[in-house]
Amino acid sequence: MEKTGEISITPIGVMRCGLQAPVDAPKNYTESAETGRLEILPQFLEAMDGIEVGQTLVVLFWLHEAQRDLLKVYPRGDHSRGRRGVFSTRSPMRPNPIALSELTVLKVDGNAIEVSGVDVIDGTPILDIKSTIAPGKKG
Amino acid sequence: MEKTGEISITPIGVMRCGLQAPVDAPKNYTESAETGRLEILPQFLEAMDGIEVGQTLVVLFWLHEAQRDLLKVYPRGDHSRGRRGVFSTRSPMRPNPIALSELTVLKVDGNAIEVSGVDVIDGTPILDIKSTIAPGKKG
Repeated sequence: MEKTGEISITPIGVMRCGLQAPVDAPKNYTESAETGRLEILPQFLEAMDGIEVGQTLVVLFWLHEAQRDLLKVYPRGDHSRGRRGVFSTRSPMRPNPIALSELTVLKVDGNAIEVSGVDVIDGTPILDIKSTIAPGKKG
Repeated sequence: MEKTGEISITPIGVMRCGLQAPVDAPKNYTESAETGRLEILPQFLEAMDGIEVGQTLVVLFWLHEAQRDLLKVYPRGDHSRGRRGVFSTRSPMRPNPIALSELTVLKVDGNAIEVSGVDVIDGTPILDIKSTIAPGKKG
């Protein structure tokens, strides 16, 4: 059985942070000192059970302002290098603009998770949250 | 500006491999010796430019057979431990069942990418492909 048609996704929550425009956002989470709050929809509160302060979470976002019809880009906007296919880059521009950030949990407060390492703007929909796979450990 | 409603995603391709049922799939890519082919839709061929043999790719899949209404699970199906919220696990069961695998490129052949580390079944839709962020390097 397989599915080749359109897939419908409902966000599980939204990012709240001080970054207002894509131009303000760090190029990726490894270069970010920004903090923010992952606000999870109340119906998914139970799915947050087990999330701990200090833990690194893998968070998938939908980059709602990203351009989707560009297949090649100048990586990091650097025009001194050639263009590359978006699938061999971390560009936010891609056919399905899903971003992957690894964020550190600072606090869990009801249905909100305070995190550091933020590299997406305020209002960005959250699609999924996962634990990391610890090296040598079973996920 | 933000988007809180439904998001529509069209897969960029499909996984072809020997794993036929979820029960056959390794629990995650770090435990897999399986190989397979990422078949990318021809209209996205240009976006593959720059993908190289030996490279690790981050690949996002839509787990089309995963249960979406379960918010707590026994991690790795181990009933000797308690249930945990799916957002603090790598369970395939989650509201938006997007899987994240890090796969090694064995060969690039037209619009197909042969990879190792496969942990999803034959026919699984591919949502996105990214490069990894090398430690200490700019993505």
